[in-house]
Amino acid sequence: MRTKFSFLFICLSLFLTCFANYQPNWESLDKRPLPEWYDDAKIGIFIHWGVFSVPSYGYRNAGEWFWYRWKITASPAEAIFMDANYRPDFQYADFAPQFTAEFYNSNAWADLFKASGAGYVVLTSKHHEGYTNWPSVNSWNWNSMDVGPKRDLVGELEKSVRKRTSLHFGLYHSLYEWFNPLYQKDRANGFTTQDFIRTKTMPELYDIVKRYKPELIWSDGQWEADSSYWNSTYFIAWLYNSSPVKDTIVTNDRWGKDTLCKHGGYLTCSDHYNPGVLQERKWENAMTIDKDSWGYRRNAVLSDYITIEYLLQQLVTTISCNGNFLLNIGPAKDGTIPVVYEERLRQMGQWLQMNGEAVYGSKPWKYQNDTTNQHAWYTAKQGGDVVYAFLFQWSQSVTLRSPLASSSSATVDLLGGKPSLVWMPLKEKGVKIEIPAWSNAKWVMVLRLTGFK
Amino acid sequence: MRTKFSFLFICLSLFLTCFANYQPNWESLDKRPLPEWYDDAKIGIFIHWGVFSVPSYGYRNAGEWFWYRWKITASPAEAIFMDANYRPDFQYADFAPQFTAEFYNSNAWADLFKASGAGYVVLTSKHHEGYTNWPSVNSWNWNSMDVGPKRDLVGELEKSVRKRTSLHFGLYHSLYEWFNPLYQKDRANGFTTQDFIRTKTMPELYDIVKRYKPELIWSDGQWEADSSYWNSTYFIAWLYNSSPVKDTIVTNDRWGKDTLCKHGGYLTCSDHYNPGVLQERKWENAMTIDKDSWGYRRNAVLSDYITIEYLLQQLVTTISCNGNFLLNIGPAKDGTIPVVYEERLRQMGQWLQMNGEAVYGSKPWKYQNDTTNQHAWYTAKQGGDVVYAFLFQWSQSVTLRSPLASSSSATVDLLGGKPSLVWMPLKEKGVKIEIPAWSNAKWVMVLRLTGFK
Amino acid sequence: MRTKFSFLFICLSLFLTCFANYQPNWESLDKRPLPEWYDDAKIGIFIHWGVFSVPSYGYRNAGEWFWYRWKITASPAEAIFMDANYRPDFQYADFAPQFTAEFYNSNAWADLFKASGAGYVVLTSKHHEGYTNWPSVNSWNWNSMDVGPKRDLVGELEKSVRKRTSLHFGLYHSLYEWFNPLYQKDRANGFTTQDFIRTKTMPELYDIVKRYKPELIWSDGQWEADSSYWNSTYFIAWLYNSSPVKDTIVTNDRWGKDTLCKHGGYLTCSDHYNPGVLQERKWENAMTIDKDSWGYRRNAVLSDYITIEYLLQQLVTTISCNGNFLLNIGPAKDGTIPVVYEERLRQMGQWLQMNGEAVYGSKPWKYQNDTTNQHAWYTAKQGGDVVYAFLFQWSQSVTLRSPLASSSSATVDLLGGKPSLVWMPLKEKGVKIEIPAWSNAKWVMVLRLTGFK
Amino acid sequence: MRTKFSFLFICLSLFLTCFANYQPNWESLDKRPLPEWYDDAKIGIFIHWGVFSVPSYGYRNAGEWFWYRWKITASPAEAIFMDANYRPDFQYADFAPQFTAEFYNSNAWADLFKASGAGYVVLTSKHHEGYTNWPSVNSWNWNSMDVGPKRDLVGELEKSVRKRTSLHFGLYHSLYEWFNPLYQKDRANGFTTQDFIRTKTMPELYDIVKRYKPELIWSDGQWEADSSYWNSTYFIAWLYNSSPVKDTIVTNDRWGKDTLCKHGGYLTCSDHYNPGVLQERKWENAMTIDKDSWGYRRNAVLSDYITIEYLLQQLVTTISCNGNFLLNIGPAKDGTIPVVYEERLRQMGQWLQMNGEAVYGSKPWKYQNDTTNQHAWYTAKQGGDVVYAFLFQWSQSVTLRSPLASSSSATVDLLGGKPSLVWMPLKEKGVKIEIPAWSNAKWVMVLRLTGFK
Repeated sequence: MRTKFSFLFICLSLFLTCFANYQPNWESLDKRPLPEWYDDAKIGIFIHWGVFSVPSYGYRNAGEWFWYRWKITASPAEAIFMDANYRPDFQYADFAPQFTAEFYNSNAWADLFKASGAGYVVLTSKHHEGYTNWPSVNSWNWNSMDVGPKRDLVGELEKSVRKRTSLHFGLYHSLYEWFNPLYQKDRANGFTTQDFIRTKTMPELYDIVKRYKPELIWSDGQWEADSSYWNSTYFIAWLYNSSPVKDTIVTNDRWGKDTLCKHGGYLTCSDHYNPGVLQERKWENAMTIDKDSWGYRRNAVLSDYITIEYLLQQLVTTISCNGNFLLNIGPAKDGTIPVVYEERLRQMGQWLQMNGEAVYGSKPWKYQNDTTNQHAWYTAKQGGDVVYAFLFQWSQSVTLRSPLASSSSATVDLLGGKPSLVWMPLKEKGVKIEIPAWSNAKWVMVLRLTGFK
Repeated sequence: MRTKFSFLFICLSLFLTCFANYQPNWESLDKRPLPEWYDDAKIGIFIHWGVFSVPSYGYRNAGEWFWYRWKITASPAEAIFMDANYRPDFQYADFAPQFTAEFYNSNAWADLFKASGAGYVVLTSKHHEGYTNWPSVNSWNWNSMDVGPKRDLVGELEKSVRKRTSLHFGLYHSLYEWFNPLYQKDRANGFTTQDFIRTKTMPELYDIVKRYKPELIWSDGQWEADSSYWNSTYFIAWLYNSSPVKDTIVTNDRWGKDTLCKHGGYLTCSDHYNPGVLQERKWENAMTIDKDSWGYRRNAVLSDYITIEYLLQQLVTTISCNGNFLLNIGPAKDGTIPVVYEERLRQMGQWLQMNGEAVYGSKPWKYQNDTTNQHAWYTAKQGGDVVYAFLFQWSQSVTLRSPLASSSSATVDLLGGKPSLVWMPLKEKGVKIEIPAWSNAKWVMVLRLTGFK
Repeated sequence: MRTKFSFLFICLSLFLTCFANYQPNWESLDKRPLPEWYDDAKIGIFIHWGVFSVPSYGYRNAGEWFWYRWKITASPAEAIFMDANYRPDFQYADFAPQFTAEFYNSNAWADLFKASGAGYVVLTSKHHEGYTNWPSVNSWNWNSMDVGPKRDLVGELEKSVRKRTSLHFGLYHSLYEWFNPLYQKDRANGFTTQDFIRTKTMPELYDIVKRYKPELIWSDGQWEADSSYWNSTYFIAWLYNSSPVKDTIVTNDRWGKDTLCKHGGYLTCSDHYNPGVLQERKWENAMTIDKDSWGYRRNAVLSDYITIEYLLQQLVTTISCNGNFLLNIGPAKDGTIPVVYEERLRQMGQWLQMNGEAVYGSKPWKYQNDTTNQHAWYTAKQGGDVVYAFLFQWSQSVTLRSPLASSSSATVDLLGGKPSLVWMPLKEKGVKIEIPAWSNAKWVMVLRLTGFK
Repeated sequence: MRTKFSFLFICLSLFLTCFANYQPNWESLDKRPLPEWYDDAKIGIFIHWGVFSVPSYGYRNAGEWFWYRWKITASPAEAIFMDANYRPDFQYADFAPQFTAEFYNSNAWADLFKASGAGYVVLTSKHHEGYTNWPSVNSWNWNSMDVGPKRDLVGELEKSVRKRTSLHFGLYHSLYEWFNPLYQKDRANGFTTQDFIRTKTMPELYDIVKRYKPELIWSDGQWEADSSYWNSTYFIAWLYNSSPVKDTIVTNDRWGKDTLCKHGGYLTCSDHYNPGVLQERKWENAMTIDKDSWGYRRNAVLSDYITIEYLLQQLVTTISCNGNFLLNIGPAKDGTIPVVYEERLRQMGQWLQMNGEAVYGSKPWKYQNDTTNQHAWYTAKQGGDVVYAFLFQWSQSVTLRSPLASSSSATVDLLGGKPSLVWMPLKEKGVKIEIPAWSNAKWVMVLRLTGFK
C-alpha cells in the first residue's frame, strides 16, 4: 500500500512540477508537493554570518540583532559596549572592514557539516542588516566583495557543499532590512510604495537563485508587511514554474505577515518551533546551539550552549512529529567555527553514525511520544513495519506502552548493538524490554522494533 | 542705453522664469537667461572632498581618481601604494571608516571662502566614487552619515554659507559612478536600460535640490552617454519650472556627451578651460590650486601648487573674456583645509580687497587683451565708460594700445592708490602711463581708465 | 605513625623556613622542603595570555611562539599569515594596541578555576615576548597598562583568586626575552655581561613578588644560559629568606641550563612531563588542552584539543607518581576564555566533585600502575590504609593484581556510589571486583579500597 | 690683523681639541672653543618628529607636548580631543603603530634643506615622549624600527644630509622623559638615584654619537635636575676628548638646571631666544614656523604660521647679535613636510640666494641695530671692512646713522643689483642712500657698504 501511494505521489509530483503552472496566489502555490529530498534529509545546518559577527556581542540577546538593539532599544548593553570600546562616531557600517574572514575555508566547513550527519546547509545570504555575503549588484559597497572579506562567501560555500553529494545547499534571505532607508520609506508610506522591493529585495532574491541554484530558500523578515507588499507569490510562482531549481526547490512559510505557519513550503511557525505533537504538514524546528543567539557572541559561556543530550532530544522529538531539524551555528568574523559548535556537530554526527537508520528517510509513526513513558519517542519505516524507539533515559529495563507486538516473532534490537534484546509483552498493553548493561549507547538510545504495531 | 537694455533684460528674465514653462529639450532649456547673480559674483570656490581624501594620493595624477586608476589603469602608482601600505584584500570601501572629518568646521570654512573674495561655493555632493556627502537614502552605507564622519557634510556647509549673505551655495554632482554595478549594467546594455538613473542618480539629484536648495548645480561625469540616457532635460526642466530654486538656479553644460560646450547653463567645455578670447555665452574656468589634482594629495609638494601670480592671471584673463573663475581646493580627510590652499585663498582675498572694483559686476570690454601689450587685460563697467586694465608686469611706464582717450579730461587711477596717474596719448594709438615707484600694487596691478574708449 | 611523622615534618619545616638562612647556591637551596599546600592542591590552572593572543595563530605550532617563528624560522606559516593579512611593515609591537581585553572579568575567571577543582592558578606575568601583564616600570610602553588593555591584568586576577580561599595564586615568568636587545647583547657577549639581568629580568621578578605575593613562581626561558648568568640563586635565596612569601612560596626547576630536572623547587623536566613511574622528588606535569599550543590559536579545531578522558588519565597517572597536574588554557585577546577550554575545566570539576577524595591530599601508593591491569592506577591516604584505584576502562568486573586484602573485612566502594561492591580475593594475587551496571561513573571510575595493602 | 688673530685662534683650537684633555667639570669644558663651521653656517633646520606627529594636535599649544598636557594638565583640549575620537582606553603608546612614515624620503628632505640655504640640520632623535627615531637597544618596542615605521629615521636622514656636503648633521636629544617610570622614580628619590641615567638616557646619547657621528648635539629636557644627576659633564668630556666627532662636535647649553644660558657650547637660554643686543658668547635662536608648536599640528591655520617677512627679520636680528638661526618644521606622521613649511624654507632659500653673502661667514659689526633707524640691522666681514645693512623697510631713500664713510671712495651696493647706489654723508653723522625704484629686493633689502666704519 505504501508503494502504491508513493507511485501515485510521484506521478502527482511530476505532473505538478513538470507541467503545472502555478499561479501567484497562495491557493495555487500551497498545492505544490514538497520535494522529497527535504523530508529524507531530516537534518540541516543553519549558518548565521555577517557584519554582526564583528561586534559579535549580545548580553542575553541575539548577537545578530546587535544593530537593531543598539539603535532602537532604550539603553541596551550594546550601547554600553560601543561607548566602552569605540570612538563616539563609530557607526555600524564602520565595522565592515573588520569582517575579514581570513580563515574561512569552505571545504573544511562542508566536511564538518557532512560529518555532522546533516543533509542540507542553509547560509545567511543576507540578514536584516542588509549586507550581502555575495557580490550583489543591488548592494554596492555593502557586500562581502566590496568591503571586508573581498570574497564571494556564498559562492565558495556553494561549490564546497555541492562537491559533497550527500549535502543540499540552501540560502537564508531576509526580506526586510531594518535600516535600509528605502524600506523605511515604504513602511512610512503604509507599504503602498514598493521602492525597496523593486530595487533591493526582489532583484537580490532572483539573483541568488540564478547564481547559486539553491535547493532551499529560507525566507525571513516578513512580519511587518503582507505578502502582497513583498511580491512573494510572484517570486515563488517563478521559483516553481521556471527557475533553474523549479524541480527541487524547497521554501518555508515566511513570506508575509499573512503567511507564517500557513502558506508557502514547509512551516516554521516560530524560531525554535517544536510543537510536540504530530503535524500533518511538513515543518521545521530551527534552533540554536547558543540558546540566546544565532550569530556568534564572543561573550557567550558554556552554559549558554545546549548540551548534546538536549540537542539530540530536540532532534528526536522534532522528527517524531514530522519536523525537520535545522541546527544553527555562528562562525566568527575571521571565518573560524568556534570549537564548541564543532564539538556539538561532531557529537551529533557520531550519534547518527550509529543511529541514523532511525532518522534518515523515517516517517512519523502513529504514536510520537510513548503513551506513558515520556522519555520514549518514535519514528517508523516501511509504512510502520519497522518502528524506532528513542529513549532519553534507560536502566535495566524499559517499559513502552505504545508498541504492540503483532506476533511472538517480533524482535527488538539495539542500534549499534549485536544480538536482539529480550522483551516480553505486558499484560495490559505494551512491552517490557531488557537493556544490556554494557552497550555503546550514548545520550539517546535507539531500539528497532520489528513486528510491532 | 545700458539702462534700457538692462530693463528689457529684466523683463525678459521675469517673463521666462516666472511665467514660461520650459520644455524638456535643449532648444527650450537653452533659452533661459542665466540668473544675474552668477555673472556678478565672478569667483567661486570649488571643493573636492570624499573617500578619496583618505588615500589622498596621486603621483602626477589626480587624487580623486585614485580608485579608477588603481583598478582600471595598468600598473599605476596607486597599486604600488596599496601593496606597500595595506593588507592585500583591502578594498576601496574599506577606506570609508577612516574618513573621519573630526576637524571639519563649516563656519571656519565659510569664513575663509568669504575672506577669499569669492561669491559662491561649490562642494562635491558626490564624486565619481558614488559616496554621498549627505545622508542619501539612495546610497545606504555609502554616505557620510552611515560610514565615516557620521555627519551631513553638505548640510553643515550649506547652513554656514547661507549665513554669510555675500555667498551663494552650489553643489557638484557626478552623473556617473565608475564602479556602481547598476551603472555598469546600463552601460553594458548600451544605455538602453536606466536602472542606475532611476534608482541612484536622478533620485539623488532631486534630493539635493529639495534638501539644500543650491543655487548652482555643477554637473559632471556625463561623457559616456547621451543626455537622453541621463534624463537630464527632464531634470533641468523641473529645476527651471517648479523646483524651489527655479528663479536663481544656475547650471553648467555637463549633462550628456551631446551637451558639453553646447547646452545647459553656462559653458565649462573642459577642465581648466580658458579660451583667451571673448566668448559670447557665459562660461567658467574651473581650475585647481594643485596643478595635478582636485582632491587633496598628501604627497604633493610646493611646486605642485600654482603661485598667487599665476592664479590671479588666470582669474583676470578669465573674467576679461566673459568667464567666471572657479578655484578648487581639496580638504583633508580630517576636515582641515591644508594651509597652502588657505594661503592662496587669503592672498586672492587680499588682492580683491584692493582691486575687487575691477572684478565684481564688471563686463568684458571691447578688447580683452591689449592689442600690443600682452601683459595687459581689460574689463569694463558702466557700458564701457569705465575701463579697468590689469597689468601682469609693469615698470616706470606702461604702454597700452587699445584704450583711446576720448578727451583730455580722461583720468587714469591706480586702484588702492591716491592721486591720479600721469598719462599721455600716443601718436599712433593708445596711451602711455607713468607708474609710481612706490605703490602698494602686488602681483597684478589694476588701473582704472575713465574717459577712454 | 603518620601523625608523628607529620609533626616532625612540620618542626623541620618551621626550622628551615623560619630560622634557617638559605645560601645562594643550589646545595643550600635544594634543602628547603616544599610547602605542603602545593602537594595537597594537586591541580593547577596554567594561563598563557599576552600580545601573542592577538595574532593568535599557529599552524601545528604553538601560538605563543608566533614572533619567534615569524622572524627566526625560515618560511614559516606565520610569515605567510602576515603577508596575507597585514601591511608589509607591520611589526610585532604593532599588535599590542589590539590586545584589548574588553571582556576580561577576573572574578568570572576565578569562579571557573574554582569550579574546575584546581587548587592553584598560574598566570603568565610575562612570556618570552617580554610584554608584561602588569605595569612594570622596567617595561615601559611594553606592558598592559601602557599599551593595549590599560589594565593591570595580573593584579586583577590576583585579587579575584585570593578572594576564593581554596585557590593559591602563582605567576609564570620567562627569564629570557627573544628579541630584547639587551638580552641579545649579553648573549653575544657569551653571557659575560648582565645588562639584561640587571635592568629587566631581575627587577621585574622582585617586583612581581613584592606586588602580588604569589605563592608559586613558575620560572621559564632559562635554557640558553647558566643560573650564574641569571642570578637565580640570589633571587631564590631572597625568596626563601626574606621575601613576603618566604613561608609559602613554591618554585620550579627552570633557573638555568644547569638546573632543569635537578635544582630548585619541584621538577618540571620538560613540557608535558609525565614519567609514568614514581618520582621521589615532587614534580609537575604542565600540559595543554590545545595539544600544539599554550597560547590560544584561532585556527585550532576540535581535534587539536584533548578529550576529557585523555585529560583525566593524564591527571591520574601524574598524581599516582607524585606529580602535580598543571592544566593550561589560552584566553583570547578580548579576555574571553574560549568555550572549549571552559568545557574541559568544568568537566574536570564535575569529575572531581565525585572523585576528589582520591585526589586532594592523596599520596602515591607503593604501586602506581597496577602490575597487570594497565588501565588501573593508584593513590593512597592515611599512610596507605586507604587505597584508591582509578580505572580507565571497566566492564562487569575488574581484576586488580596489586592490592592485597589484609582481611575479609576489607571493603571496596565506588566513589559517588551507594553500597559497597562485591569483591573476591584472587588465587594468585590481587582482587576481582564486580562493577555495578548502572553507576554514575564517567570517564574514569574510582574505587576506594579499605583494608588492602 | 684679522689674519693674525685667526692664525692664533686656530693654533689655540688645535691645541685644545687635539691635545688637551677636558675634565668633566664646567670650568674645563667651557674653555673649549666652538668649532668654526657652526658660526659660518648661521642657519640650521630644526625638525620635530615623533609619535606626537600622530595625534598632531594642540589648540594654542605645542603639538609635541600632547601627551603631557593630556595626562598632567587639568581638562585640556587634548582630553576632549581623545574623548571625541578614540576608544576610552586608548593610550599614548597605542598611537605608535599609526606613525607610518610611508612618504618619508630623506633625500627629498635634504634637498629641501639645502635649497633653504641652511648649513645644518637638527632632527629629534628622541623627544620628551622617550620614543627613539632610531633602533635604540635601550628603548625596545618604543622606537621607530620596532613599532610604526619599521625604519631607522635618523640613519636615513644622516646619510642623505651627509651626501650634500654643504650640510652638517645634528641631533636633538631630550635628557628627560615625562612618563618613563625609571625617570619618575629617580625624581621621586630627589635625584639621588640614577637608574634612568644609567639605563636609558646616557647609553642612548653615546649610542647616537657612535652610530651617526652628529656634529651637533642639541640637548634638552634638562630643567628638573642638576647636571650632576644627568652626568652631562662626563658625557661632554668624552665627546670633546675621545668621541669620533671630538674635533667638530658642537653642543648647546641644556645639560642641567644649573647650565642654561651659562655652560656647555653655545647658548640657547630659552626657546625663541633673541636678545636684540650683541652677545659675547655664541648663541642660537631656535624658533618655529608654527608660532605655537614645534611638532606639526593638523589643526593649525595660516595665521598660526609666521610670514616670510617676520622669519627673515628674526634671522637678521639674530645673526647681527652673534646668534645662529635654527628654524623649526614639523613633518607629518606620514613623512610629508606640510607645504606651508616647504614654502617658508624655499622663500628663505630664494632670499639667501641673493643675499647670502651678508649672512654666511659674517660677523657682528660694532653696531647691531642702527642707532636711529630701527628697521636697519648690520653684519660685517673682513674685520669690519665690509658692512652689510639689512633693511626691513625702505622707500626712495634710507637714512643710516651708524655707518661713517671713511673716504669719498666708499661705495654702497644693493645685493643682487647692478651698479652702485648714490649716497651722501649726513651732516651730523651717518649716510643717506638713494634706493632705486625698480629693484629685485624682496622682504628684506640688503646693502653692502664698503669703506665705511
